[in-house]
Amino acid sequence: MAIVLGPNQYGKAENRLVTVTRDGAVHAIKDLTVSTSLRGDLADTHLTGDNSKVLATDTQKNTVYAFAKQAPVGEIEDFALRLGRHFVSTQEAITGARVLVDEHSWQRIEGHDHSFVQGGNEKRTTAVTVDGERAWVVSGVQDVVVLKSTGSEFHGFPRDEYTTLQETDDRILATSVTARWRYQGSDIDWAASFTEIRRLLLATFAAKHSLSLQQTLYAMGEAVLRARPEVAEVRLSMPNKHHFAVDLSPFGLENDNEVFYAADRPYGLIEGSVLRDDAEDAGSAWYSLPTF
Amino acid sequence: MAIVLGPNQYGKAENRLVTVTRDGAVHAIKDLTVSTSLRGDLADTHLTGDNSKVLATDTQKNTVYAFAKQAPVGEIEDFALRLGRHFVSTQEAITGARVLVDEHSWQRIEGHDHSFVQGGNEKRTTAVTVDGERAWVVSGVQDVVVLKSTGSEFHGFPRDEYTTLQETDDRILATSVTARWRYQGSDIDWAASFTEIRRLLLATFAAKHSLSLQQTLYAMGEAVLRARPEVAEVRLSMPNKHHFAVDLSPFGLENDNEVFYAADRPYGLIEGSVLRDDAEDAGSAWYSLPTF
Amino acid sequence: MAIVLGPNQYGKAENRLVTVTRDGAVHAIKDLTVSTSLRGDLADTHLTGDNSKVLATDTQKNTVYAFAKQAPVGEIEDFALRLGRHFVSTQEAITGARVLVDEHSWQRIEGHDHSFVQGGNEKRTTAVTVDGERAWVVSGVQDVVVLKSTGSEFHGFPRDEYTTLQETDDRILATSVTARWRYQGSDIDWAASFTEIRRLLLATFAAKHSLSLQQTLYAMGEAVLRARPEVAEVRLSMPNKHHFAVDLSPFGLENDNEVFYAADRPYGLIEGSVLRDDAEDAGSAWYSLPTF
Amino acid sequence: MAIVLGPNQYGKAENRLVTVTRDGAVHAIKDLTVSTSLRGDLADTHLTGDNSKVLATDTQKNTVYAFAKQAPVGEIEDFALRLGRHFVSTQEAITGARVLVDEHSWQRIEGHDHSFVQGGNEKRTTAVTVDGERAWVVSGVQDVVVLKSTGSEFHGFPRDEYTTLQETDDRILATSVTARWRYQGSDIDWAASFTEIRRLLLATFAAKHSLSLQQTLYAMGEAVLRARPEVAEVRLSMPNKHHFAVDLSPFGLENDNEVFYAADRPYGLIEGSVLRDDAEDAGSAWYSLPTF
Repeated sequence: MAIVLGPNQYGKAENRLVTVTRDGAVHAIKDLTVSTSLRGDLADTHLTGDNSKVLATDTQKNTVYAFAKQAPVGEIEDFALRLGRHFVSTQEAITGARVLVDEHSWQRIEGHDHSFVQGGNEKRTTAVTVDGERAWVVSGVQDVVVLKSTGSEFHGFPRDEYTTLQETDDRILATSVTARWRYQGSDIDWAASFTEIRRLLLATFAAKHSLSLQQTLYAMGEAVLRARPEVAEVRLSMPNKHHFAVDLSPFGLENDNEVFYAADRPYGLIEGSVLRDDAEDAGSAWYSLPTF
Repeated sequence: MAIVLGPNQYGKAENRLVTVTRDGAVHAIKDLTVSTSLRGDLADTHLTGDNSKVLATDTQKNTVYAFAKQAPVGEIEDFALRLGRHFVSTQEAITGARVLVDEHSWQRIEGHDHSFVQGGNEKRTTAVTVDGERAWVVSGVQDVVVLKSTGSEFHGFPRDEYTTLQETDDRILATSVTARWRYQGSDIDWAASFTEIRRLLLATFAAKHSLSLQQTLYAMGEAVLRARPEVAEVRLSMPNKHHFAVDLSPFGLENDNEVFYAADRPYGLIEGSVLRDDAEDAGSAWYSLPTF
Repeated sequence: MAIVLGPNQYGKAENRLVTVTRDGAVHAIKDLTVSTSLRGDLADTHLTGDNSKVLATDTQKNTVYAFAKQAPVGEIEDFALRLGRHFVSTQEAITGARVLVDEHSWQRIEGHDHSFVQGGNEKRTTAVTVDGERAWVVSGVQDVVVLKSTGSEFHGFPRDEYTTLQETDDRILATSVTARWRYQGSDIDWAASFTEIRRLLLATFAAKHSLSLQQTLYAMGEAVLRARPEVAEVRLSMPNKHHFAVDLSPFGLENDNEVFYAADRPYGLIEGSVLRDDAEDAGSAWYSLPTF
Repeated sequence: MAIVLGPNQYGKAENRLVTVTRDGAVHAIKDLTVSTSLRGDLADTHLTGDNSKVLATDTQKNTVYAFAKQAPVGEIEDFALRLGRHFVSTQEAITGARVLVDEHSWQRIEGHDHSFVQGGNEKRTTAVTVDGERAWVVSGVQDVVVLKSTGSEFHGFPRDEYTTLQETDDRILATSVTARWRYQGSDIDWAASFTEIRRLLLATFAAKHSLSLQQTLYAMGEAVLRARPEVAEVRLSMPNKHHFAVDLSPFGLENDNEVFYAADRPYGLIEGSVLRDDAEDAGSAWYSLPTF
């Protein structure tokens, strides 16, 4: 019996980067949170503390900020690819990198060239995995909170000895969407693809008459795959943020789906993936991302 | 020497209330967090555990939900006033109430009658204090995160033995605005007033060339008071969310206010109030709200 | 009518300070979060952006760290007093200061001289207010989560049309204690006082048979005042963290107060103060602290 | 080309369960957060909204609370196994289950039979995966925050064009340990194993002279595997919670590793696994757990 080192990675997490670009008096900003992780021939530092192959996480941080100056940041997918490829190509011991970027949205304050208001919690995300010469891009959106006030049913589920839930043909359906989609091919217009995928996710959530949150989830993924050939696979994690109709009968009042208590915990949690059956192999695309 | 009961209040905090109203197929939703606190002749429960004057916090919660059914919720100020006056007028021992309501914003998903997407963290708030026959309304906005990429300077500050900060005539200015304003008079169009005050706060933040965050704060409060006679006083709490220009000189790069590190802590914290000198007396308006 | 500047303060919030002191190989650490706020003749910066009286918040931060080196930090009350008095005595325009310090607890890892494990969320706190020559100290404890599995009743409360709560003579009582106490006099052994007050709060929570959380709150404050002459007043904020006995009857099971659902929101919120009737006047002690 | 359903699971997350057991006047409590997820033949609900195979998440919640009454909860591993096996064995369509349990610690208030104080953020965890007849147990500990005030160096790392970090032979090393270990074999004394593994992790962190956080991480995993034959593998995720020595030279002060600024973000993040090379195959043990 021997004890050995297994999979490992290390890096600098949550570098908060804001950039300003100027077109005369008109400014644009980007607000990113960047995390880098490196993998490779790293047994020495684990076993003996020899750091000769360990590009310091402080250096990784510096690289993030320097790269933001050396060329326009551009789309987060491109920025993550540049960073990941840089580490793998310049450090002999480093054979793989994962770069996560979250983009926080800002809107221009109306009528002002260089003033902005933050657009909420919603994040555009990317997770780029570089493995030697290859690279995979999994982009997504996070914390998109949506709600339907009707058009959602839930019935026909099995009843065992622990089942008390009533069937319903009209309920509030609310969730906070985390979606990740794996790109295939290259030469992708990341910004256009993101905008359209986000629109499809919301429009499908809105339009699909729902018999279960699973059905809604599948329809959302399917809509993306039908419309966007550059996407091989969509993974969705959608908490069922329960809104319970309050029992007002003790007060002589009827509650016709008008008054709800929005609960925190527990919550349903629906996770699923939708795939193209002829898609490129996923390779390392999902390496160290949440899976299910 | 005797030990005595001092000021006290009790209630139910953070009742999560969502309501749906229907105009044919078109739905509207309201998403509120409601907290109630009662005050009055409450020595018995503290001293002997006699609860005969303690309207249960569970009853307060029920009242919130029942009231949401018995009449349209309407503007949060009206809803809070109805609740506060109800408790004070129906419970003999209860002489005062404070009702806090936060409203969370949702936007309709384009083209859909009953589907919505949440508008971010920003909250519209009200704090209503009822004291016997009188009532005060302090409304506000919270978590409005704004940023100017230029038009902000900071210099001329004193230098003591602990001062290392360099003067600057161009910096990023970013803050998360918490504003509260005290209304005077009655017969106020709460929704219109809120919309216009929020617009004024943002427009002033954007337009005002800033020599200090204090100057910006004052200008924001002043703009509201100049335009809105129904407001007696504005209080603002504005963290200085530091964005530090990263020193890229070790990499042979010049950073001409392009690349910033957005810091979490510590942060500056600027708090101030702007008043009308002939305003109605504040009375209990700010009772148990943050003051400075 | 004129528009005027009202109360205001500014400073640097949440300076994270960790110090190491060495007694040979044996180390001790202190982990503090320090916030400073200054008040005084600050109209200029608000009205014209003239910062000649504005000691920069960056300087305030530097002062915190430099003071931690210039003399042992000692008890947080002493450290806050030193800082507050420094600002008021060295800056002509500054007439008042408030210094908040939270101390985070660490325990030594058994048998090791310089290794520590964090003791949880619980914080020891102080809020020192300096106003010219005078100073007030309000110390406290925060996020002490306690629970009694029996010895708590709640009945005899009034029943109105919105009351559905059942009376109970046995429930779980759980809360997260935030206590603040105002010291009077001087020459106080802060550490010993804190330790004993914290012990009294917990022991009273545990021992007091509770007919209401208000009764428990009052007893906790009273116990401190009876035992500690250096304390003039105690303020307590105690959420009622509801633990609901789950209805297991649909499954043919009786729940004899054995199985509970711990709810997040809403929660009861009980706030109260207990005073010595011959106490020194509070002066500015509570200035800009939560009051009720 | 066809679009197909990929991996998926669904369940109820974060059921907050508190139980009280009585031995005469002496009570004991358990405070758990339980999440269940089911997998199996679930295409129908995704594709057509037919829920006939979807055991409602509400039923899963009920099962958690009912099971807590039907037999003593016992160790979290046993409770999770009972729940997971129940779902798989009673629902024909359900072939797999994952049950996550976090245990929150409480200490008895000294001298009191039924009063408790919470022990902080630290959690004991388990993740049980049931796949047909088989089951895997991955237990762990989370949010154990530890710090060494000396005995940590970092040097010998490569220097590229973006490297500015100075080498150091004495720094603060602080981290928040998340550890997960995979059990092999059966007939395990879960409580004893947990207690000893936690002790080994802390003792190794404390005793190991550290040349890198990776070295510390490996040593911690190795210590567990050497002492505990029931463990096949240990995975550790350890943020490097940076404590920067403050530059006090502008104030004429020398900082001999006495005064530190504890930073929030960015932070280093070191993740790694340590394995027994003759361990049982991991099977589905890590299914949908964080991997790296």
